[in-house]
Amino acid sequence: MSILVQKFGGTSVRDAECIKRVASIAVNAQKSGDQVVIVVSAMGDTTDNLIDLANQVTSKRDPREMDLLLSTGEQISIPLVAMAIHDLGAKAISQTGLQVGILTEDKHGKARITEIKTDKIKKYLNDGNIVVIAGFQGISSITGEITTLGRGGSDTTAVALAVALGAKRCDIYTDVDAVYTTDPEIVQEATRLSSISYEEMLELASLGAQVLHPRSVEIAKNYNMPMRVRSSFKVQDEGTLVQGVSKMELNKPVSGVALDESQARVAMIDVPDKPGIAAIVFQALAKKNISVDMIIQATSHDNVNEIAFTVDKENVEETKQVANEIAKEIGAKSVTIDPNIVKVSIVGAGMIGRPGIAAAMFKALADASVNIQMISTSEIKVSCVVNAKDGEKAVKVIHKAFELDKIERETQKV
Amino acid sequence: MSILVQKFGGTSVRDAECIKRVASIAVNAQKSGDQVVIVVSAMGDTTDNLIDLANQVTSKRDPREMDLLLSTGEQISIPLVAMAIHDLGAKAISQTGLQVGILTEDKHGKARITEIKTDKIKKYLNDGNIVVIAGFQGISSITGEITTLGRGGSDTTAVALAVALGAKRCDIYTDVDAVYTTDPEIVQEATRLSSISYEEMLELASLGAQVLHPRSVEIAKNYNMPMRVRSSFKVQDEGTLVQGVSKMELNKPVSGVALDESQARVAMIDVPDKPGIAAIVFQALAKKNISVDMIIQATSHDNVNEIAFTVDKENVEETKQVANEIAKEIGAKSVTIDPNIVKVSIVGAGMIGRPGIAAAMFKALADASVNIQMISTSEIKVSCVVNAKDGEKAVKVIHKAFELDKIERETQKV
Repeated sequence: MSILVQKFGGTSVRDAECIKRVASIAVNAQKSGDQVVIVVSAMGDTTDNLIDLANQVTSKRDPREMDLLLSTGEQISIPLVAMAIHDLGAKAISQTGLQVGILTEDKHGKARITEIKTDKIKKYLNDGNIVVIAGFQGISSITGEITTLGRGGSDTTAVALAVALGAKRCDIYTDVDAVYTTDPEIVQEATRLSSISYEEMLELASLGAQVLHPRSVEIAKNYNMPMRVRSSFKVQDEGTLVQGVSKMELNKPVSGVALDESQARVAMIDVPDKPGIAAIVFQALAKKNISVDMIIQATSHDNVNEIAFTVDKENVEETKQVANEIAKEIGAKSVTIDPNIVKVSIVGAGMIGRPGIAAAMFKALADASVNIQMISTSEIKVSCVVNAKDGEKAVKVIHKAFELDKIERETQKV
Repeated sequence: MSILVQKFGGTSVRDAECIKRVASIAVNAQKSGDQVVIVVSAMGDTTDNLIDLANQVTSKRDPREMDLLLSTGEQISIPLVAMAIHDLGAKAISQTGLQVGILTEDKHGKARITEIKTDKIKKYLNDGNIVVIAGFQGISSITGEITTLGRGGSDTTAVALAVALGAKRCDIYTDVDAVYTTDPEIVQEATRLSSISYEEMLELASLGAQVLHPRSVEIAKNYNMPMRVRSSFKVQDEGTLVQGVSKMELNKPVSGVALDESQARVAMIDVPDKPGIAAIVFQALAKKNISVDMIIQATSHDNVNEIAFTVDKENVEETKQVANEIAKEIGAKSVTIDPNIVKVSIVGAGMIGRPGIAAAMFKALADASVNIQMISTSEIKVSCVVNAKDGEKAVKVIHKAFELDKIERETQKV
């Protein structure tokens, strides 16, 4: 018998009705002949509410105590799901991260999984149970304390479990029904993808197409674990298969357009053209734990450069402080901050070895009079920073330019 | 350094303000020179809300899953209290029942504590921490599964911890400021008791004066652990000391009057006067797990008896069924049920060896034209069942008859 792992996010278990729906999806999978392990997130806004409570009692959130607090979110949803399964006449048992033995680094708030014990899960499966496991949490392999995995933690739990158990597939149930060529809310002609490669999904995930967390895709890619993105509200719909080789690579150079509205642009003006300056700037930011996304250093003129980069909007204030200090230190003229930008990106494994893709994107933007402020590229991705007001227009014209509305129409059956 | 255990109930941690108050009580106790362990219940209505959720997803609540679900209540409150203590500049660490090692019977929903590991707590205390422990929960010493202790569980956790740690005292913070001679809502002249014996507290607790759970008092009595009942909203007030020997025993025969409105009266009429009949009746009820409180068998006339007893109102329907079956079996004439009764009781270790106390109570009731339906006595307690409409009047006249408004006035300073 093969094992199937199903993961249900917070919106999929937000109330009793949704929990019953999840239970019936799991029971049906078991009836189809698989052994079923499900990974469940905290209900709806539970985690945010717990963080609110913590903010009300303290100004300094202790990482160890926060993890104990936040881990209750999933510990509430898993017994509820297990009992909803009992109600359908099937056997189920719930397990916290601690109970399973999901071992992690000794790091609170964003631990990485180091090992998953599978003995107990396999025993419960062989006894005919659907095993309901708390996502997002584990225990430190050093101290035995409860840890949480940070953003995307439940997706990561699910894929890591699928790998540890040798599952046939990991299905991620979410509130969208599939991966699209771009956000269907912006471009009506956005097309569903029946399959996509890990690499493309990874780029799309990193670029703000908030369907799957990149950490989980990374693990799936490393262990070649097939994933499916699908909706718990449309159970007949098979969604999008994320796997090692996508048919689409052969057809189209670009598989998706992503819009990321979470970044702000920071520019340091008239930076002296000396070696080591960039290192000083970005080490200072790294020390404050601020992640920098795109980095551009403009060509030198009159022995001064411009260094521009993007950071998460929530880090803008801290970045401003650090940048101003550094600017003084290195003799730069000034620092400007522009939160009013977005990042538009095209992704596609098919662009490898096909020249002109980036140029086609720039031309589409130019034809639409969209000014490009920054450009960054990888092997399978081109990103442009543009003014926020041009974001949606940019996505539309690029989607059209690469004829993304014309691919894989046949997969649109639901 | 001696150890002090403080327990805070659900109303004492119902919101952020209350949690901060609890933190400052614990920090002040530590500043006074004690090592401090605090036991915390779930916030306000959390437990009820979790039960509601369970009822929404299932019609058959699985005991193991329910315990996992309900144990989150305290797992939310303990890190919040710990962080509120951090905010006051003191060290604190929270611990679930599982983390401490509060071992229980292998019984979900109402496990009894069998052993408490103290190594970890003592280590944390010696490191200068206030240790914040989840009440109401433990783990099965057989399976390692999370268990809950049922009603009065957090009081029980606190006293058991105090005993295991060799604490100097266990303070129970609740929403009343002390133990009174009777319910101050009924009798304005009700007097605060500065101290009370375990035995008296036990009788009062069992009789519906919902201040302390009898289970916790029982443990305190067995290990001679002093307890204090006090309010988290009036920290200067020392409340009532529950201990081995009460000064009051020497002064007054009666220390309190209790009103219990939770019972219903069941009577089996014209029961044949044969040996073994009572055993048949009460074994049948015990088999259905129905607790019987007072039992009266009236004097025989014409070779038939009347057997009357009280049961919890919530068991009335089931009791009716059982009693009717038994009545048929043993040839009794009929069964009557009266939910419209209350039980009024006087309690006092001082009544031992003082005749006439019960008679004085009956006279007070007679003078007030309150009809007594049933009487039951123990060494330090006399209970009368009366019509529900006479309940408050009965409490008032008895309180007056024993001059309970005149004892220990001097302890009323706050």
